Amino acid sequence: MMERADTATLLVSCRDRTGLVVALSDFIFRNGGNILDADQHSEAESGLFLMRLVWDMRGFKLDRTATHKALTELALPFELTWQLSYSDRKPRVAVFSGRTHHCLYDLLLNRQLGDLQGDIAMVISNHPETADVCSHFGVPFTLITVENGDKAKAEAKQKALLAELGIDLVVLARYMQILSPQFVSDWLGRMINIHHSFLPAFVGAKPYHQAKERGVKIIGATAHYVTSELDQGPIIDQDVCRVSHRDEVEDLVRKGRDLERQVLIRAVRLHLERRVLVSGNRTIVFS
Amino acid sequence: MMERADTATLLVSCRDRTGLVVALSDFIFRNGGNILDADQHSEAESGLFLMRLVWDMRGFKLDRTATHKALTELALPFELTWQLSYSDRKPRVAVFSGRTHHCLYDLLLNRQLGDLQGDIAMVISNHPETADVCSHFGVPFTLITVENGDKAKAEAKQKALLAELGIDLVVLARYMQILSPQFVSDWLGRMINIHHSFLPAFVGAKPYHQAKERGVKIIGATAHYVTSELDQGPIIDQDVCRVSHRDEVEDLVRKGRDLERQVLIRAVRLHLERRVLVSGNRTIVFS
Amino acid sequence: MMERADTATLLVSCRDRTGLVVALSDFIFRNGGNILDADQHSEAESGLFLMRLVWDMRGFKLDRTATHKALTELALPFELTWQLSYSDRKPRVAVFSGRTHHCLYDLLLNRQLGDLQGDIAMVISNHPETADVCSHFGVPFTLITVENGDKAKAEAKQKALLAELGIDLVVLARYMQILSPQFVSDWLGRMINIHHSFLPAFVGAKPYHQAKERGVKIIGATAHYVTSELDQGPIIDQDVCRVSHRDEVEDLVRKGRDLERQVLIRAVRLHLERRVLVSGNRTIVFS
Amino acid sequence: MMERADTATLLVSCRDRTGLVVALSDFIFRNGGNILDADQHSEAESGLFLMRLVWDMRGFKLDRTATHKALTELALPFELTWQLSYSDRKPRVAVFSGRTHHCLYDLLLNRQLGDLQGDIAMVISNHPETADVCSHFGVPFTLITVENGDKAKAEAKQKALLAELGIDLVVLARYMQILSPQFVSDWLGRMINIHHSFLPAFVGAKPYHQAKERGVKIIGATAHYVTSELDQGPIIDQDVCRVSHRDEVEDLVRKGRDLERQVLIRAVRLHLERRVLVSGNRTIVFS
Repeated sequence: MMERADTATLLVSCRDRTGLVVALSDFIFRNGGNILDADQHSEAESGLFLMRLVWDMRGFKLDRTATHKALTELALPFELTWQLSYSDRKPRVAVFSGRTHHCLYDLLLNRQLGDLQGDIAMVISNHPETADVCSHFGVPFTLITVENGDKAKAEAKQKALLAELGIDLVVLARYMQILSPQFVSDWLGRMINIHHSFLPAFVGAKPYHQAKERGVKIIGATAHYVTSELDQGPIIDQDVCRVSHRDEVEDLVRKGRDLERQVLIRAVRLHLERRVLVSGNRTIVFS
Repeated sequence: MMERADTATLLVSCRDRTGLVVALSDFIFRNGGNILDADQHSEAESGLFLMRLVWDMRGFKLDRTATHKALTELALPFELTWQLSYSDRKPRVAVFSGRTHHCLYDLLLNRQLGDLQGDIAMVISNHPETADVCSHFGVPFTLITVENGDKAKAEAKQKALLAELGIDLVVLARYMQILSPQFVSDWLGRMINIHHSFLPAFVGAKPYHQAKERGVKIIGATAHYVTSELDQGPIIDQDVCRVSHRDEVEDLVRKGRDLERQVLIRAVRLHLERRVLVSGNRTIVFS
Repeated sequence: MMERADTATLLVSCRDRTGLVVALSDFIFRNGGNILDADQHSEAESGLFLMRLVWDMRGFKLDRTATHKALTELALPFELTWQLSYSDRKPRVAVFSGRTHHCLYDLLLNRQLGDLQGDIAMVISNHPETADVCSHFGVPFTLITVENGDKAKAEAKQKALLAELGIDLVVLARYMQILSPQFVSDWLGRMINIHHSFLPAFVGAKPYHQAKERGVKIIGATAHYVTSELDQGPIIDQDVCRVSHRDEVEDLVRKGRDLERQVLIRAVRLHLERRVLVSGNRTIVFS
Repeated sequence: MMERADTATLLVSCRDRTGLVVALSDFIFRNGGNILDADQHSEAESGLFLMRLVWDMRGFKLDRTATHKALTELALPFELTWQLSYSDRKPRVAVFSGRTHHCLYDLLLNRQLGDLQGDIAMVISNHPETADVCSHFGVPFTLITVENGDKAKAEAKQKALLAELGIDLVVLARYMQILSPQFVSDWLGRMINIHHSFLPAFVGAKPYHQAKERGVKIIGATAHYVTSELDQGPIIDQDVCRVSHRDEVEDLVRKGRDLERQVLIRAVRLHLERRVLVSGNRTIVFS
């Protein structure tokens, strides 16, 4: 799954029709591209055609404007929905962090290791202690707190910053603040949250207390796109681990922390590698 | 976890107090028993003392009546709740089966392999096809169907049979029938059901359709004791497996079947090995 | 992954070259087939092009002879290695069973449930007790024992039966007999074995004793194609479960049995759904 | 598993004999201790008695010298091997780090979160870049490099530092240097290494290349005590994750990194919580 130098990635969905695979692959071939990875599936139940295509841009004869134009034309008769991205244009990520930094550390460490196919361009937090973490990793930090209960003002600052820095993806790393419906709507499909339970079980607050009380034998964490309905957005990834009665709530919290980090980072990777296609309220993940 | 010849197993719960471990282990030692396995935990949050003790009966000087009397006396000052069982008295199991037999096969195969520390004494089904499965494995079968909508009459027959055969545990192996509150109440903590989802997610019918629609990345199965509230009883065991968009509902059903078999058999084993203690609406599993 | 009515599945491998995806998909489109599932990957390190294609045969204009001819021509310039199969031609499976039947039961139960995209046409065993299992599931059974140490004679009988019944795949379900190099060579890539450890750890006999002694925390099972070197053939699937010091060797055996069943059935399904491509001593699994 | 204030933990092993549980629990009770957690098992095969006992020290009437004396006397007739530790005496940990810091970050982050029942008192590395990581987390750092090939001199410095700081546990966090047999012998059972494969598969160097070539479907990581034989020491914990042909060696390395971090931190936690008992070349883990 490592990205190779100089590739393009195309994500496509539409009603299934004969000839889609050949139309798309022929477009690439005709223009000198070599397909490196193709993953296509037609769902029997939904009737959806879903495809991810990666090709080598070395030797590809169309420039980006021409490619965009050609794909637009190709898409029209098939009523294709498509997204195209290039490996040399790294997505720019903003992380919103709260006071607990375990997810933030993992994101910044992955950036340092070169394991993200994107760049974390800035971190926004409502806690000044986050500054030190960012400075250690050499990532710009901005403190934005809600003053006098004026949440709209804080959000306006966030919006301005995201726009100024050309951010493509917002990651909520245990941010713990409710964002306004407008903000959520602006970042639909481009804002990832980590929920500390195996959704759809234990929606809402204090899931580990709920889990302890219910005596579940497995706890989980879920990374999902944020939508206006709490913890109901399209799920990108989930994972679980076993627990027992020896685990007090504090242990569940600690085990959950490990899960949260792993699941959030995997979801961010999947998004940045353009492996996630949103369809209605679910995702298709080309893994 | 293999049972050794001639052992006794004691399950204990009560409010935590100093001296409980020594009181219990001394009782065993003083009477000539050798402890083979001890598992004790005091929960900080609930203040509960929980213990499972297994000892070698060879050399134990009290007979069963005397043991019962002595334990009753020992329990009184500590307000202990206790259950004692002996390895030479195999619990007797009745399986209630519906038309789909995958869980039933696993139970009967485990019996044949000698992997259950109990005996499946009979199978009850409302489908005549189940007879053939039982006859292959040499297990008594009774067909009990609801005639003219008279569920009470069918249940009365079941009750009579369970009593007659001295059944200790009822296993609902995809039985798919709702039992009356009275029946459920009679078998509280002694009747295990397999639910085809990761509870508490997807309570109720058609969980795989719900899972597909919600786009979860992991599906599960949950074995629990049956209580009057649907799918809300104490959870004994759970397990999960990964799924993707390539899995249609039929695939989820098939993958779920594999999970159901594994989780139900594990839960039955745990119960038969007296590893499960019910406390309120959750279980403590000594694994 | 459920098979839909009337499909063709093509598995392809070769040195990677530009134009392969379009050549293959165009061949299908041009002849009226609708691609339902495409999975292609070019390996950076090995330089291999690997692809699996499934298309709807309804409306496909070439008959099978013409398809074969056309694909042969198409393959020539690209030096493609390819296998084509049709969903209406179910692969025929022979199971070789030993005395322990847990894997055999799972295979036959899956057959009964309609969960295999192939047919178990016969079971061969060197133990007469296997007859009863086969008769229960309505599958032809043949007892072939080694008489007077004449293994070659027994194998000759097996070969004759496999040929007579037009068998495509041999599954060794805890068969426990060493097959001759010639037999192995005849069924290269078409004979699956289940090994009761996580290969390449614990090659050879008594892996659970080895695991107990080494104090591993996880045990496994591995399904692989049989080659002349013991337990060294291409791995199709593997799985693991956790163990502790409370597990005696007997417990490892029991837990391992559960793993063996699951892994073997998954490997057989993957093979029958033509998801497995052998390349050198490893497999590529399109899952 | 969270440690409560003011507890003592006793680990015991010996040949199994009647009366051990009562002797140990009575010793605690008689002196005013309340047992919070007891975990005992007698192995049928090895004949070993294994136990972990945790008790509340509030109200315990013996001081530590008297406790030590009393336990020594108690141990004599039973030929007990025992280790006693107190929650108010945190074990002191030294981390040996190489150039790759992912495991080091996890250890230091866990320390910061208060998730370790011990203190990381210092980090030693042969790479100067490690200094910055340690300074960020406020942990003393010492650079020790091998000069003019004089490994003995470097090791002498390490030994002096470990002694000076009263270190109890050495953690090799991707240290990548071979330590001398004498050093290994000095820290037997007190030095943990992380190996990047599922031992005993893929001993030695480049396990991910070996895994890719062998086509395994699951990769793993193993934390073990260091012994003189490479990668052969007692295993403390292991974990695995699934891989496919889409994973190039670089992907295996990245997935392996995640595993290494999780497994190493879990092993260190288990050791610090005195849950690990070494018996011959294996461990017993009271989890």
